[in-house]
Amino acid sequence: MSKAAEFSIAAPKGFIAGTARCGLKKNGGEDLAIVFSERPAVAAAVFTRNLVCAAPVVVSREHLKYRSHRAIVVNSGGANACTGEAGLQDARRTAEIVAEYFSCDEREVLVASTGVIGVRLDMTKVGSGIRTATAALSRKAGPRVAAAIMSTDTRPKLASRSIRLNGKRIVIAGVAKGAGMIHPNMATLLSFVTTDAAISKPALQTALREAVKRSFNRVSVDGDTSTNDTLAVLANGAAENTLIAKAASAEFETFTRALTDVCRDLAIQVARDGEGARKLITIRIRRAPTERDAERIAVAIATSPLVKTAIAGQDANWGRILAAAGRSGAKFDVSKVEIRIGDLAVARRGAGLQFSEARALEILKHDEVTITVDLHQGESEVTEWTCDLTEGYIRINADYRT
Amino acid sequence: MSKAAEFSIAAPKGFIAGTARCGLKKNGGEDLAIVFSERPAVAAAVFTRNLVCAAPVVVSREHLKYRSHRAIVVNSGGANACTGEAGLQDARRTAEIVAEYFSCDEREVLVASTGVIGVRLDMTKVGSGIRTATAALSRKAGPRVAAAIMSTDTRPKLASRSIRLNGKRIVIAGVAKGAGMIHPNMATLLSFVTTDAAISKPALQTALREAVKRSFNRVSVDGDTSTNDTLAVLANGAAENTLIAKAASAEFETFTRALTDVCRDLAIQVARDGEGARKLITIRIRRAPTERDAERIAVAIATSPLVKTAIAGQDANWGRILAAAGRSGAKFDVSKVEIRIGDLAVARRGAGLQFSEARALEILKHDEVTITVDLHQGESEVTEWTCDLTEGYIRINADYRT
Repeated sequence: MSKAAEFSIAAPKGFIAGTARCGLKKNGGEDLAIVFSERPAVAAAVFTRNLVCAAPVVVSREHLKYRSHRAIVVNSGGANACTGEAGLQDARRTAEIVAEYFSCDEREVLVASTGVIGVRLDMTKVGSGIRTATAALSRKAGPRVAAAIMSTDTRPKLASRSIRLNGKRIVIAGVAKGAGMIHPNMATLLSFVTTDAAISKPALQTALREAVKRSFNRVSVDGDTSTNDTLAVLANGAAENTLIAKAASAEFETFTRALTDVCRDLAIQVARDGEGARKLITIRIRRAPTERDAERIAVAIATSPLVKTAIAGQDANWGRILAAAGRSGAKFDVSKVEIRIGDLAVARRGAGLQFSEARALEILKHDEVTITVDLHQGESEVTEWTCDLTEGYIRINADYRT
Repeated sequence: MSKAAEFSIAAPKGFIAGTARCGLKKNGGEDLAIVFSERPAVAAAVFTRNLVCAAPVVVSREHLKYRSHRAIVVNSGGANACTGEAGLQDARRTAEIVAEYFSCDEREVLVASTGVIGVRLDMTKVGSGIRTATAALSRKAGPRVAAAIMSTDTRPKLASRSIRLNGKRIVIAGVAKGAGMIHPNMATLLSFVTTDAAISKPALQTALREAVKRSFNRVSVDGDTSTNDTLAVLANGAAENTLIAKAASAEFETFTRALTDVCRDLAIQVARDGEGARKLITIRIRRAPTERDAERIAVAIATSPLVKTAIAGQDANWGRILAAAGRSGAKFDVSKVEIRIGDLAVARRGAGLQFSEARALEILKHDEVTITVDLHQGESEVTEWTCDLTEGYIRINADYRT
């Protein structure tokens, strides 16, 4: 197995993948991918909480109820959202076509789409794409899945981990495509993870919820989601570990930790590759009264256009950071707050410090910047990721559809 | 009285104003203004709800409790926020200096500031500015107040209305300075209104709350405020109408309507002059199940970077509008929603329509764009204002402090 394949979504035992160029994407790149498990897998997934949800989300949510799953089919170049009853038929038909190829139940197929909202999929193109992708199914095609699901992403996003459970090697591997900006209300976030672990469907769903809480939900505002956001995991048991039946065991903890690592790795890649982004911003909230307060502050800072433009401009504007915390809804004593940019303290006890602007600039020049807000009034900690806001974001989004 | 003075904050009887250049603003423009009522006035005000609130807000909130008021003193070029106990002393001292000039109680003086957070005011400059401004006090200096309070605003914002109550002519006049972007969490919103109406302090406060609800709060996210936001009204009774004692009379209604008109006029000017803005966007929510739902949808659309960049790019991207509505938290049936851009229907029953892109472009070329979201499932209506999001916003905010 090549180095690339070793880290791909087809790295866990019993998974293969195929991609195709079916003409949905304007740039002529690959725009359809299929991930297939050679044996029945269990699936878990989380979807957008947007009231306006795309046809593939409706269909996948229904299909998820089924006991086993075999395949995920994803297209870029069209979101199939706000396409009414006809769009729903298209998403169902997509699953059916895939199910026919694999002679499985259509409920064993999950469907996902990303792209412009409100335009129907060209089902002739989708059909031929599925034909091409299934013909290309292999383990070595795995690395291409990450590129085929890209929209405005500038690079493919992959992550994997391996762990040992009961003496068996388990691999967890995933791909993601970026949210336009860095929280999923901005554009579609898609992520797919495969693993050869043997785990029950309910335990997998619990593990996924845990993992999401400390990864994708930390580059996003809770509930602030696009029409198509989907994160799905397939676990096929090919590693032959003792089945992780429920959510209270050392094996479950080990598995969940590794799954969280994979998801966090992908989530950070998504933040770093936000539209127009030049910098990854890590926001660490420390010693907050409660975790809920810490989260609120982290999200307010991570989504503040003023903070994000200041970082883009390499400006140690801690006032904007404190003001964002102040409007977050968290309850805290402002007069105890300390703020650091990198390792440089810029504010303490709620007020500015004299600091070296030269040193600040040196820190802010890097393409990774850490902002620490230490509240000095509790024990809760949260880390959140975002990116800077540049003119590139505006350029990309002002003429996306046309 | 000159045409300009007729519409200025010193237009209502018994008000005079003065401005000064005291060197707080980097561009060397006027940066301090005093508005003075020749007779004791009653005051009402609303302030930022940010937990991090600037020293002048703390002081003005205290002073507002006093029964009568004579003056408002405002500086640009420094927010006096996050400046600790020393900053608080500076704000108190500013009020004291003004009170000494007018031989009034310092609690009769309201204080406001705007500018960079975390830097202390140079009190020598403030003191000399107050001296210059008080020496310049006159009715004809009124029009200069709007310019002296500007920060990144590109033009001064003034509005006035006159009404008749019990045969007396009443004038209500106001100034505002822009929120950097178009909702007050983005930068400081300051607005001051004077009127010669005779109205009780409690009735004035009620009228102001009503007015704000349908004006400044409609260009902003509720509670999402900067450290310095202040809107204050002084009413001095010089028009000699019968005192509006309480909030349940025809006169109160007439006054409140006029005050709302002045505030709305100012609020729309603030939206239109958002940092980098080229277009005023009016968002009309129609036939929503409840007013709260309508508000949530309006705010979600007004604050969506994707909607705002699409309008900047003259792109009739109704999918982003619908997706923003869907994540707003409002409960509604997506399948009934109609969206119009100007008078052009672009989506109906939750799905896209065939529409003329040429006609859409023609509508989107104008510097005022109206988006109507008609939910067809209730009777509640809300109108909200915002502006487009352009590269200019990034340029302005990436190097504001330095």
